[in-house]
Amino acid sequence: MNSPILDELIQSLRCLPGVGPKTAQRMALYLLERNRIGAARLSESIGMALQRVGHCEQCRTLSEETLCSLCSNPSRDGRLLCIVGSPADLMAIEQTGSYRGLYFVLTGHLSPIDGMGPREIGIDALLSLLDRHPVQEIILANNPTVEGEATAYYIAGLLKDRPVLLSRIAHGVPVGGELEYVDGGTLSHAFNGRQQLR
Amino acid sequence: MNSPILDELIQSLRCLPGVGPKTAQRMALYLLERNRIGAARLSESIGMALQRVGHCEQCRTLSEETLCSLCSNPSRDGRLLCIVGSPADLMAIEQTGSYRGLYFVLTGHLSPIDGMGPREIGIDALLSLLDRHPVQEIILANNPTVEGEATAYYIAGLLKDRPVLLSRIAHGVPVGGELEYVDGGTLSHAFNGRQQLR
Repeated sequence: MNSPILDELIQSLRCLPGVGPKTAQRMALYLLERNRIGAARLSESIGMALQRVGHCEQCRTLSEETLCSLCSNPSRDGRLLCIVGSPADLMAIEQTGSYRGLYFVLTGHLSPIDGMGPREIGIDALLSLLDRHPVQEIILANNPTVEGEATAYYIAGLLKDRPVLLSRIAHGVPVGGELEYVDGGTLSHAFNGRQQLR
Repeated sequence: MNSPILDELIQSLRCLPGVGPKTAQRMALYLLERNRIGAARLSESIGMALQRVGHCEQCRTLSEETLCSLCSNPSRDGRLLCIVGSPADLMAIEQTGSYRGLYFVLTGHLSPIDGMGPREIGIDALLSLLDRHPVQEIILANNPTVEGEATAYYIAGLLKDRPVLLSRIAHGVPVGGELEYVDGGTLSHAFNGRQQLR
């Protein structure tokens, strides 16, 4: 019923995460009826990003330079290395402003069932980075999921003979949460990881 | 903190309806990390649609031809004309498959506060279409909102001296709904518009 080009636009909008057929149709009509300038800008910026944005050769986050702005920033503390599972996790940590060290971005987490082994997620690149730039502390900030925990455990095993302090971000009750609604696993972690006052 | 090109991509994704800063960031990272092929297709199809999709010169819905597939379809009933407020409304009606006449798509509804007067929503084009192609019945399928009702009322006033049957789509309780949860206005309409059984 629609024109083929409009159908193609609706179909291609569905590649966006969380966008189903209804939302894609709404987006396509909005772009064509109400915001052609925004649509042109979007088309151009996707093209530009695809062409120019690659990965930082040191930390492997998304970057348009060979070395990203974090790795090339001399005021970051090169003795700390934080390992995360994706650029989105890096951004979330950066947005807190509470960490001043460097990062290493894995390509997801270990998940043999999805074909994600150590090589696929970039463990080799991590080890070769550590050979070139030894650090004092490695903070494992993998997701608190089964895959993330497995990945953190695996990396800890690989690095156990190196003279480096290994740490894992704390598990516990989220700030602002109510104990009543916190799940059991998190509560157990919060008790096991309790910290002495003074 | 991000690369400027990535920031620009995130900003331009925010022009999509219902997409805020968090979702835009998630979409941008997804496109660049996981689905570059889909991203390229999206960029291309937006560009193509902007270039090729215009408005049907008869019914004014989105179309890449001068005359859309509905207006140029000889099996549609040219004696019926349904007036809707947007191409999305037209699509919703077409998807039911229960209407076989033609359409006329207004550019929204009358809303003086937003600068939408009769000329802006395309009443002139509607009258000139009716002069060229007189019809037997006009079905006002404007949205059941204040603006939609005002627009339907305004059009009914304009056409009252023409030899044409005017109708408005029925207001009433939605199929599958429970009376308990239906709002008062809709319930009153359902009572006023009640239909005799046999």
